[in-house]
Amino acid sequence: MNTIGHNFRFTSFGESHGLAVGGIVDGCPANIEIDFEAISTDLKRRRGNRADTTQRHETDEVEFVSGLKGGLTLGTPIAFFLRNGDCRSADYELLKDRFRAGHADYTYQARYGTRDHRGGGRASGRETATRVVAGNIAKQVLATVGVSVGAEVLKLAPERDGDTRGGAVVCHIRGIKAGVGDPIFGGLDSELAAAAMSIPSATAFEIGCGTAASDMNGSQFVDKWVAPFVTETNHCGGIQGGISNGNEITFTVHFHPVATIPEATQCISSDGTIEYLALGGRHDRCHVHRLPVVVEAMAAIAIANHIKL
Amino acid sequence: MNTIGHNFRFTSFGESHGLAVGGIVDGCPANIEIDFEAISTDLKRRRGNRADTTQRHETDEVEFVSGLKGGLTLGTPIAFFLRNGDCRSADYELLKDRFRAGHADYTYQARYGTRDHRGGGRASGRETATRVVAGNIAKQVLATVGVSVGAEVLKLAPERDGDTRGGAVVCHIRGIKAGVGDPIFGGLDSELAAAAMSIPSATAFEIGCGTAASDMNGSQFVDKWVAPFVTETNHCGGIQGGISNGNEITFTVHFHPVATIPEATQCISSDGTIEYLALGGRHDRCHVHRLPVVVEAMAAIAIANHIKL
Amino acid sequence: MNTIGHNFRFTSFGESHGLAVGGIVDGCPANIEIDFEAISTDLKRRRGNRADTTQRHETDEVEFVSGLKGGLTLGTPIAFFLRNGDCRSADYELLKDRFRAGHADYTYQARYGTRDHRGGGRASGRETATRVVAGNIAKQVLATVGVSVGAEVLKLAPERDGDTRGGAVVCHIRGIKAGVGDPIFGGLDSELAAAAMSIPSATAFEIGCGTAASDMNGSQFVDKWVAPFVTETNHCGGIQGGISNGNEITFTVHFHPVATIPEATQCISSDGTIEYLALGGRHDRCHVHRLPVVVEAMAAIAIANHIKL
Amino acid sequence: MNTIGHNFRFTSFGESHGLAVGGIVDGCPANIEIDFEAISTDLKRRRGNRADTTQRHETDEVEFVSGLKGGLTLGTPIAFFLRNGDCRSADYELLKDRFRAGHADYTYQARYGTRDHRGGGRASGRETATRVVAGNIAKQVLATVGVSVGAEVLKLAPERDGDTRGGAVVCHIRGIKAGVGDPIFGGLDSELAAAAMSIPSATAFEIGCGTAASDMNGSQFVDKWVAPFVTETNHCGGIQGGISNGNEITFTVHFHPVATIPEATQCISSDGTIEYLALGGRHDRCHVHRLPVVVEAMAAIAIANHIKL
Repeated sequence: MNTIGHNFRFTSFGESHGLAVGGIVDGCPANIEIDFEAISTDLKRRRGNRADTTQRHETDEVEFVSGLKGGLTLGTPIAFFLRNGDCRSADYELLKDRFRAGHADYTYQARYGTRDHRGGGRASGRETATRVVAGNIAKQVLATVGVSVGAEVLKLAPERDGDTRGGAVVCHIRGIKAGVGDPIFGGLDSELAAAAMSIPSATAFEIGCGTAASDMNGSQFVDKWVAPFVTETNHCGGIQGGISNGNEITFTVHFHPVATIPEATQCISSDGTIEYLALGGRHDRCHVHRLPVVVEAMAAIAIANHIKL
Repeated sequence: MNTIGHNFRFTSFGESHGLAVGGIVDGCPANIEIDFEAISTDLKRRRGNRADTTQRHETDEVEFVSGLKGGLTLGTPIAFFLRNGDCRSADYELLKDRFRAGHADYTYQARYGTRDHRGGGRASGRETATRVVAGNIAKQVLATVGVSVGAEVLKLAPERDGDTRGGAVVCHIRGIKAGVGDPIFGGLDSELAAAAMSIPSATAFEIGCGTAASDMNGSQFVDKWVAPFVTETNHCGGIQGGISNGNEITFTVHFHPVATIPEATQCISSDGTIEYLALGGRHDRCHVHRLPVVVEAMAAIAIANHIKL
Repeated sequence: MNTIGHNFRFTSFGESHGLAVGGIVDGCPANIEIDFEAISTDLKRRRGNRADTTQRHETDEVEFVSGLKGGLTLGTPIAFFLRNGDCRSADYELLKDRFRAGHADYTYQARYGTRDHRGGGRASGRETATRVVAGNIAKQVLATVGVSVGAEVLKLAPERDGDTRGGAVVCHIRGIKAGVGDPIFGGLDSELAAAAMSIPSATAFEIGCGTAASDMNGSQFVDKWVAPFVTETNHCGGIQGGISNGNEITFTVHFHPVATIPEATQCISSDGTIEYLALGGRHDRCHVHRLPVVVEAMAAIAIANHIKL
Repeated sequence: MNTIGHNFRFTSFGESHGLAVGGIVDGCPANIEIDFEAISTDLKRRRGNRADTTQRHETDEVEFVSGLKGGLTLGTPIAFFLRNGDCRSADYELLKDRFRAGHADYTYQARYGTRDHRGGGRASGRETATRVVAGNIAKQVLATVGVSVGAEVLKLAPERDGDTRGGAVVCHIRGIKAGVGDPIFGGLDSELAAAAMSIPSATAFEIGCGTAASDMNGSQFVDKWVAPFVTETNHCGGIQGGISNGNEITFTVHFHPVATIPEATQCISSDGTIEYLALGGRHDRCHVHRLPVVVEAMAAIAIANHIKL
């Protein structure tokens, strides 16, 4: 549902135009000194500053309400929220009885028999801000055991007049010793895949050389030893049998373009009429620039769940 | 760990050269008449019959020991096992103190401080037979609500003299109504990704048009309505916001080639010596032919966990 | 950890003297109209109004920040918090380096290597206010399927000059059809026991006639049929084999007296000195009056997790 | 459902008159040398040897089929089963369309729309043999960190001609350091209560002085320090705020008498007729003698889930 992980566990809440979005981090070790500046920096990375990202102004001040004393973690649940300011819900009034093509409007309605139509409701990209906060805490926890996580844009779909663009993000996890992860259904690759695919607009997950592996022969693919437990290549992306092998863990996530084309978004109304609307609302032309920090967050949350802390 | 799912839950056990592999299916609805022939047929599909699959002769007779009375499910745990016959453990004697390149030998050792070196132990492809049994039960359960699952080989790496081959499998899930799945961290795409990536040798997961989506613009990607809740294309693969939209669910899984090249498998011994061994053991040149039924199984298990039964 | 339930799931957060306590209810069905007045009434019951309950003035205004639109549930996580006003943390300054006898001061320190010493921190009875909110939502959900939960004080320890008093609370769950609950480790009795024993100061749980059953012979204990599926007695408390039998479910919870005797609380300091302190802080002479609503809350949360909603 | 625990996890399967009962222990640390004799000894304790226990002859040979190599644990799932010999299913033919008073016959039928009527099916005491196996493994694991578990009969209901008897069992867990357990909903007392109450016929759970605490005043109940972290009494049973305090953990479980009075068991048939039958089947006059080892098993499984192994 809205919870990921067990030992390091994150629960997210909030609708885009409700009072706040936020979350609870449970299972965070005690006595970690939280660097709040680092959290702000990651939230700033997520907001983006390019002309082609959303015009919604989010101040993203995180309010922590539990789990900390004097800046140190207590080991108890860390609850936080980010107020939703600058909502222009009126922009979305048209959507009350309409479902946008390419969005989760219809699926939420089918699932729950209701939905918050304002700003995408629960399915809004706004929710990813909570992941960035939890993910930054996870990164700080991982840093105490020498593990770091970094992601960047790998490619972008071509720029076309006024259209939105897909893209891909690559992520590297460094400093993980061999032997982390559970085999079979608890493998690191399975959990990273689930974590990454939960990011809105994700369409594919590749570990190591990913899709390229299906075109290879064994003699090409196998990562050969060149010294004790050191390999020449890292085609498998640092994971074998679900367990880390001591190499860098690398994976790639692909994202489809944002579905809202501001000038003309196709909608279907509850009475079946199909029409094109010039919706207001503020949307990214290229949201991929904002995603590396979200990918990092999900990777860090997934890994923190497995590291002995 | 070795359990997947909650409402429909499968736990797997067994090493390749132990007494048996098997599993427990929990949460299966009561009063389902099990078609045992269908289970045998799927196990036969998994064994494969081509010249390039493993020479190990598995009879694969499933023994059910609980959860059934007169061929009907009781709603209680269904435990089953498949005895491991035709083990030639001696073939693996060399591996006692050696780790094969491209295998999970070293990662299991790092994780547990021990491992069963015979036939790959727990990490053997043999374990997937248990998934096929549980997956077939899941398919039979899904059939009662009109849902079917089918997978097939999408492509194979080129054939080269004596070398092993990677490949990809595409899977279609039909008959799912709109509104199935949980958003955020419990999305169908996340759970299908985790289920698929848990199959040994999986390296990538794509939902709908997958990696191609990252090269698209919004106007290309969006699945447009052509009639009430009917779309022209299915680029999103039947899932939006983690929830089914009523279309077919389609995903693709990529697999790397099997790492064992029978004539010369690179190994490292515990004292650090790197060498090439002509290992015995029986291995697939092209294991991809055997995987569609495993992909179906994992898909069915993941979906059965979400369908109201 | 801080989460209970799966299908209907409650996560609690907050320290007694932090900014707020609160929680997230996940899995609540959509389109339930929430009666906020009922929540306030239950919080008032928990605060108590007798001379012998704590003097801390809690306004207990619940702020809901997600999961609701126009007073109706959305099916998404319902997050709420109650600000901690009227904290006199200075009262607890003495406890920074001391552990009180009969409290969880020492065990939290041993578990986490730190603790919030102010007002009992996470282990304070204050946290139960969050359960009352979640429990009232659960009761409202259960009411939609005809199930009600009611608890009352069954007995109190004798009143002695200035001393605190233990007591017991009995709870009745009405309107549950036969066939609710999972057998073996998911039985309703197991889950009610776990839920009840999680209430601070709980020391015993009895289902039906409870401890008295161990003094009985079979001919006395068995609840005899008097008409189809109607029994003469209800010794088993409405649950057999972990599953409801259609009778009222009845259970009793025993609570030890509050450990703080305001005039002289025994403490041990980190250097090993044992002393008696007249601690400030505001504590209940008889907290049992405040517990029926907490017992109801935990019962409702446990049952809502099992009812098909 | 049929699984208990997370880090140390046990799943049970099997009906009384099916082919076998058994289970899977997952999360057991690697490289533990299993003492199979100790498992047999515990199974013998469970079978009992007194005149007043069931006449069914169970050989109780455990067959381990995975997770072990050379008597050492591999860290992978340990699956085992006990064949059901000596079943006289014909004895139960009458029960096909009848529900016994005091049994789970009717609740299983209501829950699943079917049941295995032979020998109690899934609800039979036979299932507890699997817990004894898993519990003994848990005890062996706990022994590696200095923790031991022991239980004994505390009291028995009076003996009356031909009638069955209730009773109570007390359990002591020794060697647990302070700081084990999770607060709030993951407390050791909650988890021990759930584990104990899952034993068939359990009706009450008491931690420490249990029900007596509700008659006490604070000055009587509080366990006073007599030396650094040593208390004079152990009224709280070694757990405060859900976390161990370093004392012995003590709890008591009460059990109702077995409901089958062999000479005349009240039954209701599916057409509503109430009658008394002299059922065959073999039942305990006093099953309480057999329960200490089951209580130990459940305690050990619950504690192993919390100890850092």
